[in-house]
Amino acid sequence: MSDTEREKREDGGDTDRRIARVAFNDDGLVAAIIQQWDTREVLMLGWMDAEALRRTLTTGRVTFWSRSRQEYWRKGDTSGHTQHVHGARLDCDGDAVLIEVHQVGPACHTGTRTCFDADDLHPVLGAEPTVAADAVSSP
Amino acid sequence: MSDTEREKREDGGDTDRRIARVAFNDDGLVAAIIQQWDTREVLMLGWMDAEALRRTLTTGRVTFWSRSRQEYWRKGDTSGHTQHVHGARLDCDGDAVLIEVHQVGPACHTGTRTCFDADDLHPVLGAEPTVAADAVSSP
Repeated sequence: MSDTEREKREDGGDTDRRIARVAFNDDGLVAAIIQQWDTREVLMLGWMDAEALRRTLTTGRVTFWSRSRQEYWRKGDTSGHTQHVHGARLDCDGDAVLIEVHQVGPACHTGTRTCFDADDLHPVLGAEPTVAADAVSSP
Repeated sequence: MSDTEREKREDGGDTDRRIARVAFNDDGLVAAIIQQWDTREVLMLGWMDAEALRRTLTTGRVTFWSRSRQEYWRKGDTSGHTQHVHGARLDCDGDAVLIEVHQVGPACHTGTRTCFDADDLHPVLGAEPTVAADAVSSP
């Protein structure tokens, strides 16, 4: 019996049923937001096909599908900067997953903690509504 | 002079240069992760084309491109659940943006605070490495 078959037998197919709820895109991929579970830093955005998501949900280690290399990429196997799963949630329309992790070392291949550390787009800041406005608009 | 032309004149084309760094996909879109700036909750994932990103960066209000409706969608115009920009960053390979916002009311059209509140994928949890292991793997 293969590892995959053993895992399926142990969880009664629950993982398969969860993965069946995902709306993969035309390339068979779903966007995966990776967030540090305690500090809540957004570390990176990666892509997963059904098999990468299955490995992520069943092994405790985050695995992506590398679009550039066209291969599975278990985060940290080369760099040592592993991602250990703390939680995983699917969004309301099924086309994005949020994976909470414990990140070992920097998440970014450039050596920064997150992949969003280097490039500030300098937006015009929005005027924050007052509490009163919040109350009116959220009945 | 149109609003767009006026904005371009005022910022000396800086916004255009920032947007030119974005690696839009074959459909002309970039993934936009929306995060509440203070609690750091990940609220949703949306999509922006260059014009939606320009509007987001220059007006203080988050604007998406709706793939299903094929139109611009300024978050909250219908629901009142507006998103006010607090920050915007581009990732290391240019194909994802992280927008920090103040979210008024629930972010999700289902009425939940975030789009990730309803569907737990129940992953197997990873074994968290010890501090010693962290130190070894992040020299």
